[in-house]
Amino acid sequence: MKPYELTTTAAAQAIRAGEVSPVELVDSVLDRVEQVQPRLGAYVTVTAERARHAAREAEHEIAGGRSRGPLHGIPMGLKDLIDVAGLATTASSRVRAGHRAESDSAVAARLDAAGAVLLGKTHTHEFAYGLITPQTRNARNPTRVAGGSSGGSAVAVAAGAATFAVGTDTGGSIRVPAALNGVVGLKPTYGRISRHGVVPLSWSLDHVGPITRTVADAALVLNVLSGYDSRDPASVPTPAEEAPADLTRLRVGIPTNYYFDHIDPEVEAAVRRGIEHLRDIGAQLVDIEIPMTRYIKAIQWGLMVPEASAYHEQTLRTTGEQYGDDIRVLLEAGELLSAGDYLRAQRARTMMRRAWANVLEEVDVIAAPAVPMAAVPVGQETVTWSDGTTEAVADAYVRLAAPANITGIPALSLPVGHDRTGLPIGMQLLGHPFGDAALLQVGRAYEESAAEPVFAAV
Amino acid sequence: MKPYELTTTAAAQAIRAGEVSPVELVDSVLDRVEQVQPRLGAYVTVTAERARHAAREAEHEIAGGRSRGPLHGIPMGLKDLIDVAGLATTASSRVRAGHRAESDSAVAARLDAAGAVLLGKTHTHEFAYGLITPQTRNARNPTRVAGGSSGGSAVAVAAGAATFAVGTDTGGSIRVPAALNGVVGLKPTYGRISRHGVVPLSWSLDHVGPITRTVADAALVLNVLSGYDSRDPASVPTPAEEAPADLTRLRVGIPTNYYFDHIDPEVEAAVRRGIEHLRDIGAQLVDIEIPMTRYIKAIQWGLMVPEASAYHEQTLRTTGEQYGDDIRVLLEAGELLSAGDYLRAQRARTMMRRAWANVLEEVDVIAAPAVPMAAVPVGQETVTWSDGTTEAVADAYVRLAAPANITGIPALSLPVGHDRTGLPIGMQLLGHPFGDAALLQVGRAYEESAAEPVFAAV
Repeated sequence: MKPYELTTTAAAQAIRAGEVSPVELVDSVLDRVEQVQPRLGAYVTVTAERARHAAREAEHEIAGGRSRGPLHGIPMGLKDLIDVAGLATTASSRVRAGHRAESDSAVAARLDAAGAVLLGKTHTHEFAYGLITPQTRNARNPTRVAGGSSGGSAVAVAAGAATFAVGTDTGGSIRVPAALNGVVGLKPTYGRISRHGVVPLSWSLDHVGPITRTVADAALVLNVLSGYDSRDPASVPTPAEEAPADLTRLRVGIPTNYYFDHIDPEVEAAVRRGIEHLRDIGAQLVDIEIPMTRYIKAIQWGLMVPEASAYHEQTLRTTGEQYGDDIRVLLEAGELLSAGDYLRAQRARTMMRRAWANVLEEVDVIAAPAVPMAAVPVGQETVTWSDGTTEAVADAYVRLAAPANITGIPALSLPVGHDRTGLPIGMQLLGHPFGDAALLQVGRAYEESAAEPVFAAV
Repeated sequence: MKPYELTTTAAAQAIRAGEVSPVELVDSVLDRVEQVQPRLGAYVTVTAERARHAAREAEHEIAGGRSRGPLHGIPMGLKDLIDVAGLATTASSRVRAGHRAESDSAVAARLDAAGAVLLGKTHTHEFAYGLITPQTRNARNPTRVAGGSSGGSAVAVAAGAATFAVGTDTGGSIRVPAALNGVVGLKPTYGRISRHGVVPLSWSLDHVGPITRTVADAALVLNVLSGYDSRDPASVPTPAEEAPADLTRLRVGIPTNYYFDHIDPEVEAAVRRGIEHLRDIGAQLVDIEIPMTRYIKAIQWGLMVPEASAYHEQTLRTTGEQYGDDIRVLLEAGELLSAGDYLRAQRARTMMRRAWANVLEEVDVIAAPAVPMAAVPVGQETVTWSDGTTEAVADAYVRLAAPANITGIPALSLPVGHDRTGLPIGMQLLGHPFGDAALLQVGRAYEESAAEPVFAAV
């Protein structure tokens, strides 16, 4: 196994044991970046020199016995919405031409303090306003979409071009590309990771989270990223004490509606096998009904569209022609919505949050598909379901992800197999608010006992 | 001293000592209600029979050694936005004709469990959308306004027609009438008291809180009212541990701008004497600058108007003609605002909350006037300041109160004297988020050492 293939956990172990040095690891991953970047386009910017310098520094520190913890010397990518002092945060948009961040975002600072090595900034759909990341191709099959908007981050991790990465998730933007590329994506509880220094899409739905090769890696990275930050108004001061999941009495909720409607049969079969596996390792399966499903799309869009327009209001006036057409239309539409429209969405969200809290009283986690179908061919715009109904691809990808953004509960996407063409399929586990650790524990129990290797480099 | 004149603390003590029975106390207060109600109009509904029955029950329980705590047998009034099972919640509006609450609001249930005796429902401006409470007259001078929208509650307490009362405060609606009637009003930290079962005006600004005769009473009642409630989405699960104020090192912030601009000279003089008194008892006075003052009114209205319209949307369609003209115009205007207008207010509020947090790092509490002028004559609509500028009376009364609603910090209004005509003047103390106990401690230190008796029945 080459160094770039190592999981974060394994790389940290190898560095600790002196089997791999940070310089070897970073060089191996940078070589891999060079190899796959022309084909996959995961990165906006690769900061190779800076990374090599940081790797030498990490090597020096570790040799001197000054370990900064499990991420010390581990190379990673940051979605290009996340500020790093001295670098541009392009948001993959022409609007940002000439940008240069003055200081680190909260997560960049935390990763830096933990010794992680920045490889570069990864692609997003322009300002994260989409579910495709058109600049990037799927790591498993370059004729397929990467998924998005954290597509660059997921593809980098899946292709061995980053040991882990950080993305953002407003309506599935971490979990969707993670599922489509066969890696692990965590959208933590709202308020858990600071968004200071991260370009917002929709502040009441935006989350920052890790994309990794294993659930164990996600837990490791979450630990470094999370913590109170007064600069993010949604940051939560003192997360309640987390109870570990009792895996011998685990109650896993299986939705009887919504999550298995309008999904590809191969996706359903793989996820149901994954659920059976959870039963095999001791979980009790409990049928649950997802509440208020017909409001999900209206709430998600009703919050996101006006919040995005509010953030871009000034720029739209001054340099509106620099936005892509798809984004500009959405931003302009958002300005036409009334306060009543927004407040209806906000009130419905409050009701939905309460209704989900009731459902979660019955179970420890909910298991469901992460996305209704594997990665579609680049350029495909709609999908037709067996009952003859047609859905926009972007709507289909956001559909199963949005409830966790609306309610703020933690949600994990992890690989549970492939379809006949070899495209990855993701299962989604949803947990209790601030039950991120218990959720990850369940994910780890699955991954440790699952037959299939979770990471297989292309 | 007659029983109706007792403070809550003194009444509780007298009941405990067997000097006054709940029945005597309730009868005394009900007699007083009968006496002042025709002149002052504090109550929408007086539930005398129910109160007498509850008093006998309390007497029986206490005689049997089953005390429910310091509010057991104490008669009180609830603003008529607060649900009590089986009674109408009229919101002082024709729209509510025929209403009957099915269950208790959170605060009614808490007061009931603590043994407090409901006297009736007190007047509010229609749906709390105003600062006057036109149905009620000032307890000190019936030619003057009561203040509002918790005017009925404040007048009842000031006139001896309730030992304490509960009100709501969206832009000063507890503190303004408390100041104008010479009693104590507390708007606690946002999230501290559940609003479940309370008719909202503007859910992001609405607070429930006590109106009492002394600060000691406010602390007693707050204790019963506060606590987490999952039915109020803003309720805070685990308020941080509160540090008691170190009164020997107390830093009191004195605003150099905003709070002393455009205020009546007699109000200024009385509040500055109050502040001098705080210095006399050991406080260190610190000049502070109030941030972002030119946004206060825009934020307050920018949040309140669309939130109120959202709540009333359906009723406005079906029974719009039942609203008073002033309210209907505001509700209709709120429907014309854009999502962008609302979100600008929301974003400015976030910035203001942060700016105030910075100011509060320098001081323990802030001392300022509660209202810019004492109670104006009924019917007066504007006030003219010494520089010749004119202001609507409602705007003037909300001006100094709104910052605490926008930021969510606790704010206490307490009496600091009278003007030449005998009208009461209120000082406002503002504290740290969830520093309600420390704030009340400062208020008590003031009241215990102040020369003037805080309660003097008319």
